[in-house]
Amino acid sequence: MNGAEALIRTAAGAGVEICFANPGTTEMHLVAALDAAPGIRPVLALFEGVVTGAADGYARLAGKPALTLLHLGPGFANGIANLHNARRAHSPIVNVIGDQATWHLAADAPLTSDIESLARPVSRWVRKTATPAELAGDCADAVAAARAGAGGVATLIVPADCAWGDAPGPVTAKRVEPRAQVEGRAVDGVAARLRSGAPALLLLGGDALGARGLAAAARVAAKSGARCFLGTFPARVERGAGLPPFAKFPYFPEQGVELLSGVRELVLAGAVEPVAFFGYPKLPSRLAPAGCHISVLAGPDEDASGALEALADALGAKPDAGVRAARESFPEASGKLTSETLGRTLARLQPEGAVVVDEAATSGAQWFGLAAGAAPHTVLSLTGGAIGQGLPNAVGAALARPDRRVIAFQADGSGMYTVQSLWTMARERLDVTVLVCANRAYRILKVELARADISSPGPAARSLTDLQPPELDFVSLARGLGVPGERVETAEQLAAALARSFATPGPMLVEALL
Amino acid sequence: MNGAEALIRTAAGAGVEICFANPGTTEMHLVAALDAAPGIRPVLALFEGVVTGAADGYARLAGKPALTLLHLGPGFANGIANLHNARRAHSPIVNVIGDQATWHLAADAPLTSDIESLARPVSRWVRKTATPAELAGDCADAVAAARAGAGGVATLIVPADCAWGDAPGPVTAKRVEPRAQVEGRAVDGVAARLRSGAPALLLLGGDALGARGLAAAARVAAKSGARCFLGTFPARVERGAGLPPFAKFPYFPEQGVELLSGVRELVLAGAVEPVAFFGYPKLPSRLAPAGCHISVLAGPDEDASGALEALADALGAKPDAGVRAARESFPEASGKLTSETLGRTLARLQPEGAVVVDEAATSGAQWFGLAAGAAPHTVLSLTGGAIGQGLPNAVGAALARPDRRVIAFQADGSGMYTVQSLWTMARERLDVTVLVCANRAYRILKVELARADISSPGPAARSLTDLQPPELDFVSLARGLGVPGERVETAEQLAAALARSFATPGPMLVEALL
Repeated sequence: MNGAEALIRTAAGAGVEICFANPGTTEMHLVAALDAAPGIRPVLALFEGVVTGAADGYARLAGKPALTLLHLGPGFANGIANLHNARRAHSPIVNVIGDQATWHLAADAPLTSDIESLARPVSRWVRKTATPAELAGDCADAVAAARAGAGGVATLIVPADCAWGDAPGPVTAKRVEPRAQVEGRAVDGVAARLRSGAPALLLLGGDALGARGLAAAARVAAKSGARCFLGTFPARVERGAGLPPFAKFPYFPEQGVELLSGVRELVLAGAVEPVAFFGYPKLPSRLAPAGCHISVLAGPDEDASGALEALADALGAKPDAGVRAARESFPEASGKLTSETLGRTLARLQPEGAVVVDEAATSGAQWFGLAAGAAPHTVLSLTGGAIGQGLPNAVGAALARPDRRVIAFQADGSGMYTVQSLWTMARERLDVTVLVCANRAYRILKVELARADISSPGPAARSLTDLQPPELDFVSLARGLGVPGERVETAEQLAAALARSFATPGPMLVEALL
Repeated sequence: MNGAEALIRTAAGAGVEICFANPGTTEMHLVAALDAAPGIRPVLALFEGVVTGAADGYARLAGKPALTLLHLGPGFANGIANLHNARRAHSPIVNVIGDQATWHLAADAPLTSDIESLARPVSRWVRKTATPAELAGDCADAVAAARAGAGGVATLIVPADCAWGDAPGPVTAKRVEPRAQVEGRAVDGVAARLRSGAPALLLLGGDALGARGLAAAARVAAKSGARCFLGTFPARVERGAGLPPFAKFPYFPEQGVELLSGVRELVLAGAVEPVAFFGYPKLPSRLAPAGCHISVLAGPDEDASGALEALADALGAKPDAGVRAARESFPEASGKLTSETLGRTLARLQPEGAVVVDEAATSGAQWFGLAAGAAPHTVLSLTGGAIGQGLPNAVGAALARPDRRVIAFQADGSGMYTVQSLWTMARERLDVTVLVCANRAYRILKVELARADISSPGPAARSLTDLQPPELDFVSLARGLGVPGERVETAEQLAAALARSFATPGPMLVEALL
């Protein structure tokens, strides 16, 4: 068998079930190996940003890595933005990049580039295979590196001659280092601080955002009086009726500073310390006030839900203590679509068990709060701020969980970055409802212009923040990519379109004019 | 004035006239500066790959740099693939990347990344500005670096506080190092070798591909008997009736080896030594045979056309010697579209002075040979092999030369990488005819599978090289992006559609089913 087949068999043996791909010439032996070695499903995307974003969405739902198959430096580079998001989400992903044959690198052929320099900023693990015989072992190491702790991005560069050369065979899966347990001493230290009764805030991230971690956090809050918030961009959080209805930590630094003012004890459970998303004149980087003590109960690679349970027990919280959201019966919205009527309509109709990929930006502001009272669901959000995550994440989520309806709740501007995702939704017949919030502007940038004291933008600033003319027509775009679509302008039309999509297998796009 | 305004005024003073942009929060002061300081036209694209590809197309036609305005690491990363092509094309480009404020980097906010690691592989010059006072000087250095020699990619990283902080004002343009003149001694050495009468081949690239360089090469060929070829992927070449009808050096290494077999003198004029695009088992990296002497008459950063003229004079070639293409009267094609009937129809109808951006891949194979007898035109091709260059290049070419019709001769698979380009064509009302060759496959990969001895691809290999189902519908895609379109299935329909587009201002897409 050749190196490529040994690699694919090794990955399959380590539990990899899917490969998102946009291959080129240097990956042809790896492509052929997907036929020679059964067990890994190939999924084609028309652009590499879809490949990596789909692998991220898959990882967040499946909790294990997909392979990506990418073409040398430039092909990989097209996938970097969504790997940046995946890195911030601690998503396990194994990138396989076909490179020039080892002996051909010196020729500096047109597609040759410094792949390692491109890969390092988004990868926790990078290796370039040296010989065909080592390829399978390198793959096993890559899968283990991707799965270690909370998960992360591992990048394996495969020279073409290592793929086509003879290899001894696959390698068995390597031992994976799980999330580290938090020591009892650390838990007791935090418990002592919370018992002081000083104003406290608990910030949740990582695996604290699952049902188990949230329930434990609610117990801690009920017993200690600490307030609980989700990190601003949760990679994956369980929400809706029956779950704790925690809000997200605010996006703008002024609001973060205000929320934290007076807080004396800040406890991080799987979350990082709150910092401003961007620096602004006269605003701080770190948002916690002077005199606020910060405790790391669990870092992102640690078992935050276990630590929260231990903390709740240490505090003596009752097993069923803590707030839970009631199921709201949302009144039907009518008339013009706004962030509120759109959010309410979605919260009312979203089916139980939906996965909502939230890249709705300013248009989605109302929905998240309302959805605390919706049917139980899972939310994925834009962890790294690199827009264009939403549609590819929806592809991957739907492949990880074909039993659940996926809702891509999508802003128009960011939707255009990786719009090619729709084609893969059609090809794979995925149960994805794409809800495009069409406000025809980079609205967040108009807000940021105002924040930069540019109160009356000139023609250049307007032209660089407006998305018209010409008007984007997402229904035509969807048709061009094989997905049926519908444009709606009222809450009633939106409700009818969503209901139709939720009842119909396969993808559908709804363009909501705001 | 703030640093941003000093930067924009400096760039305008150095001759920069246009800024392709997809900005975010860290670029808002730079956006506002485009209003405060007149002279640079902002052009919005919906994706950064369009921004950088447009800057490349602009540079190839205008011969001077545009600015690009890009958002931190991930935004820049989306533009890397087309910067890779620009690097190989020696296109002058000045990237301006807004980064986190200097004092905010340590907070590791979500969008923070190692921009320099991402930028270095595609940039000949990278600098991160340290203070607002230095920003204008850094911009002047960036423009000079981009313009030096044949041209290249310069990347300036601008922390947000350097943009919003006070600056003393703009800086005057720095001296630009032009293409180096080739010494007479070197020319005489090549002349002596060619006089030997040994079988010789002249390979042309860089500025040897302009009318002046081509004419000089034709003189050299006529006098010495050397055969002349264009590099396989010329960045910009003048072609058509009245110009030397040189063919391109072949793409596949077997053909390159065959062409060079028996050649004893290989002369490179602005071109690099011919190497295989990819390594294959049992085929060499370098294609010239053992015993072939390689002379570098002019490197890519040298004055190749001047050196060719000096060489022609040294050989004693007559001023008007050398082959010129006659204007062909192509017979009208009819019936089913093939690479031949499509190429003939385009060659027959393309208007004088057209700029043809050739990313038609396998579908375009016939056209290039035929077009030697078409009306004089300029061809841009895929210099770095990173597909998705064609449509953005067409945007930039049309903005550089609004007096000329631009034809984006485009394969379907590669067209999907940066399809967002169509929206900018519509917004800026560019005279671009997009001719999509829809063969519904990554045809080149099917060829490569066969070359890899995978003669009967399995379902995985087929699914990763087929572009259907579902069928892409480029006419709907174009409509969604504001561009009128038409689908054609015969040569007659194609001719009618092309004639209509060439006679109508503004963009139009023609989807040709092959």
